[in-house]
Amino acid sequence: MADMMRAFVMTGIGEVAFMDKPRPTDPGPNGAIIKTTRGLVCTSDTHTVKGAIGERKNLTLGHEAVGIVDRLGSEVQSVQEGDRVAVNAITPCFQCDNCIRGYTSQCREMLGGWKFANLKDGVFAEYFHVNSAEANLVRIPDSLTDEQAVYTCDMMSTGFAGAENAAIPMGGTVAVFAQGPVGLMATVGARLQGAGLVIAVETVPQRQELAKQFGADEVVDFQERDAVEAILELTDGQGVDSSIEALGGQATFEMCIKATRPGGTISNVGYHGDGEYVKIPRQAWGVGMSDMTIRTALCPGGKVRMRRLLRLLETGRVDPTPMTTHTFAFEDVEQAFHMMDTKQDGIIKPLIEFSH
Amino acid sequence: MADMMRAFVMTGIGEVAFMDKPRPTDPGPNGAIIKTTRGLVCTSDTHTVKGAIGERKNLTLGHEAVGIVDRLGSEVQSVQEGDRVAVNAITPCFQCDNCIRGYTSQCREMLGGWKFANLKDGVFAEYFHVNSAEANLVRIPDSLTDEQAVYTCDMMSTGFAGAENAAIPMGGTVAVFAQGPVGLMATVGARLQGAGLVIAVETVPQRQELAKQFGADEVVDFQERDAVEAILELTDGQGVDSSIEALGGQATFEMCIKATRPGGTISNVGYHGDGEYVKIPRQAWGVGMSDMTIRTALCPGGKVRMRRLLRLLETGRVDPTPMTTHTFAFEDVEQAFHMMDTKQDGIIKPLIEFSH
Amino acid sequence: MADMMRAFVMTGIGEVAFMDKPRPTDPGPNGAIIKTTRGLVCTSDTHTVKGAIGERKNLTLGHEAVGIVDRLGSEVQSVQEGDRVAVNAITPCFQCDNCIRGYTSQCREMLGGWKFANLKDGVFAEYFHVNSAEANLVRIPDSLTDEQAVYTCDMMSTGFAGAENAAIPMGGTVAVFAQGPVGLMATVGARLQGAGLVIAVETVPQRQELAKQFGADEVVDFQERDAVEAILELTDGQGVDSSIEALGGQATFEMCIKATRPGGTISNVGYHGDGEYVKIPRQAWGVGMSDMTIRTALCPGGKVRMRRLLRLLETGRVDPTPMTTHTFAFEDVEQAFHMMDTKQDGIIKPLIEFSH
Amino acid sequence: MADMMRAFVMTGIGEVAFMDKPRPTDPGPNGAIIKTTRGLVCTSDTHTVKGAIGERKNLTLGHEAVGIVDRLGSEVQSVQEGDRVAVNAITPCFQCDNCIRGYTSQCREMLGGWKFANLKDGVFAEYFHVNSAEANLVRIPDSLTDEQAVYTCDMMSTGFAGAENAAIPMGGTVAVFAQGPVGLMATVGARLQGAGLVIAVETVPQRQELAKQFGADEVVDFQERDAVEAILELTDGQGVDSSIEALGGQATFEMCIKATRPGGTISNVGYHGDGEYVKIPRQAWGVGMSDMTIRTALCPGGKVRMRRLLRLLETGRVDPTPMTTHTFAFEDVEQAFHMMDTKQDGIIKPLIEFSH
Repeated sequence: MADMMRAFVMTGIGEVAFMDKPRPTDPGPNGAIIKTTRGLVCTSDTHTVKGAIGERKNLTLGHEAVGIVDRLGSEVQSVQEGDRVAVNAITPCFQCDNCIRGYTSQCREMLGGWKFANLKDGVFAEYFHVNSAEANLVRIPDSLTDEQAVYTCDMMSTGFAGAENAAIPMGGTVAVFAQGPVGLMATVGARLQGAGLVIAVETVPQRQELAKQFGADEVVDFQERDAVEAILELTDGQGVDSSIEALGGQATFEMCIKATRPGGTISNVGYHGDGEYVKIPRQAWGVGMSDMTIRTALCPGGKVRMRRLLRLLETGRVDPTPMTTHTFAFEDVEQAFHMMDTKQDGIIKPLIEFSH
Repeated sequence: MADMMRAFVMTGIGEVAFMDKPRPTDPGPNGAIIKTTRGLVCTSDTHTVKGAIGERKNLTLGHEAVGIVDRLGSEVQSVQEGDRVAVNAITPCFQCDNCIRGYTSQCREMLGGWKFANLKDGVFAEYFHVNSAEANLVRIPDSLTDEQAVYTCDMMSTGFAGAENAAIPMGGTVAVFAQGPVGLMATVGARLQGAGLVIAVETVPQRQELAKQFGADEVVDFQERDAVEAILELTDGQGVDSSIEALGGQATFEMCIKATRPGGTISNVGYHGDGEYVKIPRQAWGVGMSDMTIRTALCPGGKVRMRRLLRLLETGRVDPTPMTTHTFAFEDVEQAFHMMDTKQDGIIKPLIEFSH
Repeated sequence: MADMMRAFVMTGIGEVAFMDKPRPTDPGPNGAIIKTTRGLVCTSDTHTVKGAIGERKNLTLGHEAVGIVDRLGSEVQSVQEGDRVAVNAITPCFQCDNCIRGYTSQCREMLGGWKFANLKDGVFAEYFHVNSAEANLVRIPDSLTDEQAVYTCDMMSTGFAGAENAAIPMGGTVAVFAQGPVGLMATVGARLQGAGLVIAVETVPQRQELAKQFGADEVVDFQERDAVEAILELTDGQGVDSSIEALGGQATFEMCIKATRPGGTISNVGYHGDGEYVKIPRQAWGVGMSDMTIRTALCPGGKVRMRRLLRLLETGRVDPTPMTTHTFAFEDVEQAFHMMDTKQDGIIKPLIEFSH
Repeated sequence: MADMMRAFVMTGIGEVAFMDKPRPTDPGPNGAIIKTTRGLVCTSDTHTVKGAIGERKNLTLGHEAVGIVDRLGSEVQSVQEGDRVAVNAITPCFQCDNCIRGYTSQCREMLGGWKFANLKDGVFAEYFHVNSAEANLVRIPDSLTDEQAVYTCDMMSTGFAGAENAAIPMGGTVAVFAQGPVGLMATVGARLQGAGLVIAVETVPQRQELAKQFGADEVVDFQERDAVEAILELTDGQGVDSSIEALGGQATFEMCIKATRPGGTISNVGYHGDGEYVKIPRQAWGVGMSDMTIRTALCPGGKVRMRRLLRLLETGRVDPTPMTTHTFAFEDVEQAFHMMDTKQDGIIKPLIEFSH
């Protein structure tokens, strides 16, 4: 009889539960089994539970986790059993058309690199399976804690991608819309990309504070005043070179276009969950001839990306752990989900500790 | 008393007329006066008359023309009086912030590189003034006719920009939406950028024929069938690597998003004239995380661009003159405007001949 | 007892022979076995025999071939047994650091994507093994012959890469140094990338003719006159925007630097086989401050690249078969090697036909 | 009789002197006259005196200075007389072919953007003339001192360009060869571009200290040990993603190639002053097929660049003033030249103070 393990699953839309599942033991030739040690709950996990990606039946939740290599497929050589490893939320195959084209987050199909808790069981279980392990696993350097490392799985990779796609000129101006964990990492990313002025747009006081701590030069509260006007004032009436949409809303997307100067770039990393359309304000977009660029991204994965992000932690360029506002044992993960949904108690990121 | 000249002007919204204006004689230190020889009417000229850019009082119309250098400013050295020259529809200063940033079509302000028949008198007069002449004028090689050269002023530059911005992989797939003169030049441009498959979307039979003549591999009639479906069929269900919007409509823009694969690029060169918003279909856009890019452009100008376009004519890469469906003397230019508005008699581009 | 097959091998430096080898039957989970149908001999095959990459003992030669899928690994899904397929000379794993960084030709180590007849048996045998088959095999469309398709394996991919890396502006000027098969495909590639003027540098009359046939606007014979001077004359004294080194020699590399204007790009695809250094002329390089770029490449592989190249054949953008100057049965391949070495009889590419 | 002013000139190769020159009073329509307030001596000034760019007769020296607008040409609108302004060492016209192509430092001809103390009188005089003032002058924000601002004229712009051209991946590894003032600013630039590990190569203890202060993670002393070996050790045997040559020597250039991994970028900002050739080690360069890129740059100028650099000073991203090791009154500038030549007393940059 197979060994069993505890998993935290979505039993249906709006419903979660713990259940016992067979512990995965066959990695397949190219895969790996990881024993989970630390995880983080993502707002998108709570969206999934609410049905954002449709019905799922007993699917293990979670996509941000680190752990220990339990078993490795015969073809995997880059890590060894027993290694402490990180794996990105996005686990591309690196063999399909989209991956080879360079769009690994769109593995096989649009958004198809996102496999955990979407196309297969996620990471909120005692063990989880990783596909294409040769390309997706990376050893965590001894100098880093699990807590630090788990921030590379999604928050740092997504937030930084927002900045990398923003085509920020050395010394240029950037506005980052919303300072949730992805937005905060976009703020850090904008500085790491050489921005001369980073304007964070956020209304929650605690997040405004974190934005400053993570390097925002200015914070604009768009409930207090018109954010576009404020940004124009801060940029001598020119607008910013680059704006980053880190929320996924019509209002913020629209402000991005309006706050960006001709020739500038709007970099979208927000998940747009509602409506048939996301709408571009026509005049501010220069009737389609403003030399503006709108880019989009889903969290970049793969071992090279992960190693670079870990390096930024090692050399002290960023310490994301101030975002860990709460810590839960795995058996209490449902409470973490509940708090992420309500955002109560100023929660930013809940850290989940697994014990074996 | 100043010499007078004939000019074809917009007297107010919806109204055009010939009038006598003082012939420009002072180029200023950095400018030039050009004696007009050939011009082309653009559909956007007719939009201007209808009020698309607001009220204008006795503004000379037209932005596509070639001619002879009549007078040169003291600081201009790159051409000489008497030279046969071309000047782009867009005449940037190359000295302002946006120009130096590399977005010369956004000179000083959004779309501000477009000066002729917008910020100053246009080219449908016996003489016209060119700003920043050192950077904007280029001699026409002897081997080219005025008719050939005048296509570099807007049609080739804009259409090719549509292709250049589309990030077409060598051997990749491209869809070009609408085959008016800009769309036709985008079709040529897509081939010049190495596209392996160019799909033209057009319903007018004559334009479909021209599309094939200019190099489209496939023509899709979107009134006969769903264009997105047709494009998916032609690309093994993947969608195109790149799509070019050369019309400026919600329907075509939306099809661009739907017909383009994840990671692909939508290159907009169409003028979007209507509505508060241009709308992105949310799901087809991968909820903002598809790695798609939406780019925009206004006709690139300046002498370097012009010389490169003239070179493509010289070495026979393209012959745009099949687009000259009609020819008018300058005194009959109003009829050309009328026909461009109604698109009667299968008109594509009317050539205007000036005699002195 | 294992089935045996004929293979054409390098028995040691300077020595080749036919030998019987066990026919490969185990593709491994990610590999494939291909039954060879057509191949092409490359000049670099003859370099290998002479010891350019060091001693090899009974290594099967050849890296350009197409064939039929004989056996497939359990994890390979993108093609099926019996499919007619092409595989690039370069077969990256797409899983290692360099591959994931985007430099697939440098798989695992510098130049490590080149596995055939270098790190493992090549394709001049009745059967050959392909690693990472999911990512490296592509079906050949029915409309194409094996002879056409086999040109995608190296000549088109390498020559076109020379052009793609050259940063050719639309309508810009390009010089291609040497018109062997790679240089000829670089000439085609330069046109496909939008060059307004392509100058081919070559001394052999037959190759000069092919250069014109493949689209060179001008041909410069550098034994008749100074090639740099000729290029400056053809470009109004400015030099070319981009130059492509398709030979691998100090003289041609040096001419590239001298013939390229400030800000231009030198794209190297020639194999530099001699000397401790390849030398940059200091003054022509602007003492290291000319804004010039020197790029390098090894033939890009993988199924996406191959499919795009096949598409260019399908839509008639290029027909490389005029380069097939000679055809040999597999049992006569040694004669083809001999002729490639001596370049006798105006040989460009010898096609090798396998019969089963 | 014209007003006279003091100027520090090169009277001939190896000889400098103070002389009285007519004070410039006619800016021309597009120019400006600046009253000098602060300057910095550059090592290249001392090269000029030694004849590096050939003979010059009574040419005013110096190219790094800030001052007050004394007189403005009729066409200049972006600043006003009396403004405190900075102007880059490189003053492109922004109207010629090379400028419009985007290579403004190569204005009109190779390295032609460098006009001060090369093609025209430099800035070490009580007044100096600036060409194309609309595009080249920028107001210095009140919050910055002249001393801070003058570092944007060359040191920050050149050093940062070294980093910008190095194609540093977010979190990637960089080696900067030599930690003179340009190398130190390249070290800062590498961090501003998101490098995860910056390795400075330098032997002078004081400069090693400054390197750490400016953000180097590791310092390698290449007189103590083999720098390439050290870099390979620090990068798990892979070599760096990017290397920056900030000295202009064969040894350092060669180390750049050897220390950089396949697919990496070598960014040269060093002035290579000696020899007929700068030599690329052939094997380390992957025989010309390693996917490596070698880029070059001359200090980027123009008001947009300057404003961005000033912004980085304003928001505290960098404080270059620790490089000011010595300060001299203008009348003692010859001593500063002498010390820059001998590098005595640990001199990095001597600040020159002008009084009026």
